[in-house]
Amino acid sequence: MSTISPLSVSFPVMPDIAGATPRVARAGYKDWARCDLTYVVLDEGTAVAGVTTRNQCCSAEVELCRAHLPTGRARALVVNAGNSNAFTGQRGKDAVDAITEQVAEHLKCDVTEIFVCSTGVIGVPLPIDKAQAGLCAAFDAVPCSWEDVTDSIGTTDTFAKGATASAIVDGRKVQMVGIIKGSGMIAPDMATMLGYIFTDAAIDAAFLQQILSAANQSSFSCITVDSDTSTSDTVLAFATGKAGNAPLTSFDDAGADAFAAALNDVCRQLAHLVVRDGEGAQKFIEIQISGATSDDSARRVGLAIANSPLVKTAIAGEDANWGRVVMAVGKAGEPANRDTLSIRFGSTIVARNGLAVADYDEAPVAHHLKQNEIEIGVDLGLGSGHATVWTCDLTHGYISINADYRS
Amino acid sequence: MSTISPLSVSFPVMPDIAGATPRVARAGYKDWARCDLTYVVLDEGTAVAGVTTRNQCCSAEVELCRAHLPTGRARALVVNAGNSNAFTGQRGKDAVDAITEQVAEHLKCDVTEIFVCSTGVIGVPLPIDKAQAGLCAAFDAVPCSWEDVTDSIGTTDTFAKGATASAIVDGRKVQMVGIIKGSGMIAPDMATMLGYIFTDAAIDAAFLQQILSAANQSSFSCITVDSDTSTSDTVLAFATGKAGNAPLTSFDDAGADAFAAALNDVCRQLAHLVVRDGEGAQKFIEIQISGATSDDSARRVGLAIANSPLVKTAIAGEDANWGRVVMAVGKAGEPANRDTLSIRFGSTIVARNGLAVADYDEAPVAHHLKQNEIEIGVDLGLGSGHATVWTCDLTHGYISINADYRS
Repeated sequence: MSTISPLSVSFPVMPDIAGATPRVARAGYKDWARCDLTYVVLDEGTAVAGVTTRNQCCSAEVELCRAHLPTGRARALVVNAGNSNAFTGQRGKDAVDAITEQVAEHLKCDVTEIFVCSTGVIGVPLPIDKAQAGLCAAFDAVPCSWEDVTDSIGTTDTFAKGATASAIVDGRKVQMVGIIKGSGMIAPDMATMLGYIFTDAAIDAAFLQQILSAANQSSFSCITVDSDTSTSDTVLAFATGKAGNAPLTSFDDAGADAFAAALNDVCRQLAHLVVRDGEGAQKFIEIQISGATSDDSARRVGLAIANSPLVKTAIAGEDANWGRVVMAVGKAGEPANRDTLSIRFGSTIVARNGLAVADYDEAPVAHHLKQNEIEIGVDLGLGSGHATVWTCDLTHGYISINADYRS
Repeated sequence: MSTISPLSVSFPVMPDIAGATPRVARAGYKDWARCDLTYVVLDEGTAVAGVTTRNQCCSAEVELCRAHLPTGRARALVVNAGNSNAFTGQRGKDAVDAITEQVAEHLKCDVTEIFVCSTGVIGVPLPIDKAQAGLCAAFDAVPCSWEDVTDSIGTTDTFAKGATASAIVDGRKVQMVGIIKGSGMIAPDMATMLGYIFTDAAIDAAFLQQILSAANQSSFSCITVDSDTSTSDTVLAFATGKAGNAPLTSFDDAGADAFAAALNDVCRQLAHLVVRDGEGAQKFIEIQISGATSDDSARRVGLAIANSPLVKTAIAGEDANWGRVVMAVGKAGEPANRDTLSIRFGSTIVARNGLAVADYDEAPVAHHLKQNEIEIGVDLGLGSGHATVWTCDLTHGYISINADYRS
């Protein structure tokens, strides 16, 4: 791992999730002395939901997840780190098929109940022999912690990222843990990165999908590190049902709101953690958009600001150059009117209705920009649409990491 | 000026343009010892055409150019450097009005025949007193060279950028010169930066506009440095008519094709020069897209690649990481099919129909990437749409320049 991000957060204490048993092993996808194959066995009856990248050049793994999700049932998750297996044609598909067949035979289940994800360099077929030997080792390994799993799925991540929540459903306490990897090539479109949520709640797969899709819209779809959308991004939620609650099937069920709130909370936390580990990040930036013509429009304006290299470098330089925010709003391609636009840095309004405030005092803004958590508020003054997006600054660290990632 | 770009090109020898008389002066918009106000007098009968930014938060200057262009007549151009006067409300508009009124009175012409552009930091009203004193000095100054003008309109530019061409129209040789400024905040959408083309050709303003708009589509609209579209971008073309040719009014006129070719050539050269002075640029990158479903789609795929921080940093690191090109194609939001996609670096095909070529030899690619002119070819394998776009790499230099541009 590289130097740990200055925005890192400690890995939380995480409960076991009844019905989900994680193990890790060394497949040796790269020349490194660490576990890089993750294998989580899920007890029979586990429901699954997921969201995947909209990148049109997606990996065979993403296609497999999309094909298997409609059944709503899962028995195992396999994650390979160090090789994304994306853009590898039939050989890539063969590798994924070999994995699902080996696991299905081991668990005596259907191949459609196996979910596989891979992350790492694009364009190199996943070596089938290493995957198969790694799986054999994983079958025999002792169960491990969620933190071990998180370390095993990471690539350029500088710290292990996890979140946990619980809810009372049908009188039972249901537990939820989420883990995620991601640091660069982060610009979600529907979903992003590799993220996994495990819960012991009993819930219908279709309803789990509904809740996850909604949570995704205000979490993973509202973050960006570098505007680049990965070919392999996948977020999966597994519900083992072991908590013993009466299965949730709709928002009419008691506890459904509490469960959805817990899932939202975990997704939001995980999304923030990815930004906090953004490549080269020194600042965590929250951008609040209001007054847009719609929530969708607000989100797109927010992402235009969050993806602007000039805004991101200004924040890196602790420079109160709010004109770059004006520029980014104007280039977003969304309804905007210069003369109703207001901008805030921290709690200080710097511009209102199209020009700098008369008594603008840069001192409190300069002070705010020296912190490592930055808040930018933009009111478009047009309607009631709003959204919040999160990003990090653009620093020399990003260039250093990415100008020689593969070589 | 900062260190001169390693991709710089010498300023060409430029002819005088009969009917266009440039002068420069010191308005002192910033605390610097250089000319920062440009004043070009255009003889009566000069036709004008222009394209302006699509940024919704554009400056009062852009609004003025848009308002004055429909008349098709120009008597003077004023360019202020060091202050963009964008996002300055009524005070910004007052400053522009003061300039047009002062020049119109001096030249005894209509205010609609005066064109004003400003470039520099956003959000600070242009000081009217400095503009007026600067204009008085310019009125009295001796005419200067096009290179002096180019130095006077520059801000973060590291070298003076100009291009020239000529054509035979109606048996007369017509001359054309073009100058441009721009280095960061470069992502044209219809037009970009401040660029000026002067010709002694006689041409109808509406036909000049038609030719300029078309030229813009394959030049300024096909470059990007950092995906950020400026609030002040403007390209204007002035034709004084002094060459004495029968005025061009349509492509049916003899010489119209030659004139359009010359204008295209100058626009293309100027666009390339901006990329060559891209902030922090060490490599000039040409991206050729073919096999798209339309030319527009090809251009958007090209710009998705050209704007990808991960592609740009890979080129900076001379890393043949073509998987990042796959990612960028897939995230463009345009029709693409992984399994018909082929990618070329220089003259070496690295991937064909969705996977790495069987006998891929990285050596010639590595050699190509060590040059400072890089060519990437992408064939989408879907149709006959094609486009070429240009960009530069993303380096530590970009971060250094932009993390403390204003402070």
